[in-house]
Amino acid sequence: MILLTNDDGIYAPGLWALYEELSQLGEVAVVAPESEQSAVGHAISLANPLRVKKVTLDGGVEGWAVSGTPADCVKIALAELLPQAPEMVISGINLGPNVGINVLYSGTVSAATEAAILGVRGMAVSLNSYKAAADFASAARLARETVARLRDWDGWASNGVCLNVNLPALPADRILGLKFTRQDIGPLVEHFERRVDPREHVYYWLAEIAERRDPDPETDYGALAAGFISVTPIHHDLTDYRSLEALKTIKW
Amino acid sequence: MILLTNDDGIYAPGLWALYEELSQLGEVAVVAPESEQSAVGHAISLANPLRVKKVTLDGGVEGWAVSGTPADCVKIALAELLPQAPEMVISGINLGPNVGINVLYSGTVSAATEAAILGVRGMAVSLNSYKAAADFASAARLARETVARLRDWDGWASNGVCLNVNLPALPADRILGLKFTRQDIGPLVEHFERRVDPREHVYYWLAEIAERRDPDPETDYGALAAGFISVTPIHHDLTDYRSLEALKTIKW
Repeated sequence: MILLTNDDGIYAPGLWALYEELSQLGEVAVVAPESEQSAVGHAISLANPLRVKKVTLDGGVEGWAVSGTPADCVKIALAELLPQAPEMVISGINLGPNVGINVLYSGTVSAATEAAILGVRGMAVSLNSYKAAADFASAARLARETVARLRDWDGWASNGVCLNVNLPALPADRILGLKFTRQDIGPLVEHFERRVDPREHVYYWLAEIAERRDPDPETDYGALAAGFISVTPIHHDLTDYRSLEALKTIKW
Repeated sequence: MILLTNDDGIYAPGLWALYEELSQLGEVAVVAPESEQSAVGHAISLANPLRVKKVTLDGGVEGWAVSGTPADCVKIALAELLPQAPEMVISGINLGPNVGINVLYSGTVSAATEAAILGVRGMAVSLNSYKAAADFASAARLARETVARLRDWDGWASNGVCLNVNLPALPADRILGLKFTRQDIGPLVEHFERRVDPREHVYYWLAEIAERRDPDPETDYGALAAGFISVTPIHHDLTDYRSLEALKTIKW
């Protein structure tokens, strides 16, 4: 059984396009947030309880809508909702890429990380488009092929690693292939728009992030921009070992 | 100038105890969430605008209350509110430790990470106690000493690294010293409590996490449990390089 979740919410077209394709690989259970959770990061719900509601979608497919984050969905699916541990957890398809620093803010990726923490194969799938009318059917086909190809990789989950997949929003014949990449860690280009509300109070909005020039094609950001499917193995040990060694040898 | 933030909210006693102590090291600006943000992970506000309100606390100290997460506070402080870039960003003191897997869920740590992303020294400070009446005054003194000791370390921020500090909730004479540690990555012991509401709907609550036995004293979790101040250098490159090398050499 494959567990499918996302952070755009259970009614998002990206999730259901992926459901269609993954069903060709085996049984798929859907446990996803009842509403959009974008940029929740790796949040879990401690202060509030989780409510779980069975919903029936077009075509009669059943899923569980959870009043929480993508990480919550994975936790409660494994602990309470599924009859057995799933073979893998797939999260997506997210509307918008999850590359570079944004991986830290990504609810989509956090679901895959949560799976890895719990010892299950996890994969996040995001599409490099912000258009609501994005071609999720083609993207889902690519995602299914990627899952099928990587399914038997033995490094998956066994060492706490999950995979962060980003798909180009391009016709199949313009995609250059699949590339294994590292996370780009360059800073984002962003700014706050200062606005004034009708009552003359100031507020701020984090405004569009400018694209960087000449990104490194060995990174998730650069490979995706060049037209590759980017696959980044990510883990959840945040220790910076080089600094740790340095700190240990300094005479304090 | 030191920027002080937290995720328990601008009125939390842990923040103000730390304010008192850090003031001995220089000017301190406070920019913190207007309400508690625990377990927000590394979230940022994209869907909603940020509102910023100047508040005056007991003793006439002024701070900025932000309608967002700790990471939002750091972003907007650096972009809009502070007259110049701060020397460092300190986040805390959090009520409750941030060690092991919980680091991923920690708003306190996310503020320090955000600082590192923006090229500023960041430090998260958490206290190993969940009691609202915890001794924040003693903890803040320890935190100030730790900041003073590590202030000139040249590896800080220059390579995207920030420091995750956890303080024992012990009298000074029972603290064993300061230890540089790695993040514990063992799984949490947790479960969902299944409850029924007055309208007979089922809901779930993530229930208390059992402590592990014999934790490794080289980890944040183990060092803190043993009575050390734990200092973990953390970064935001989630790439698992070992897996990346393996994936690149496999014939697909």
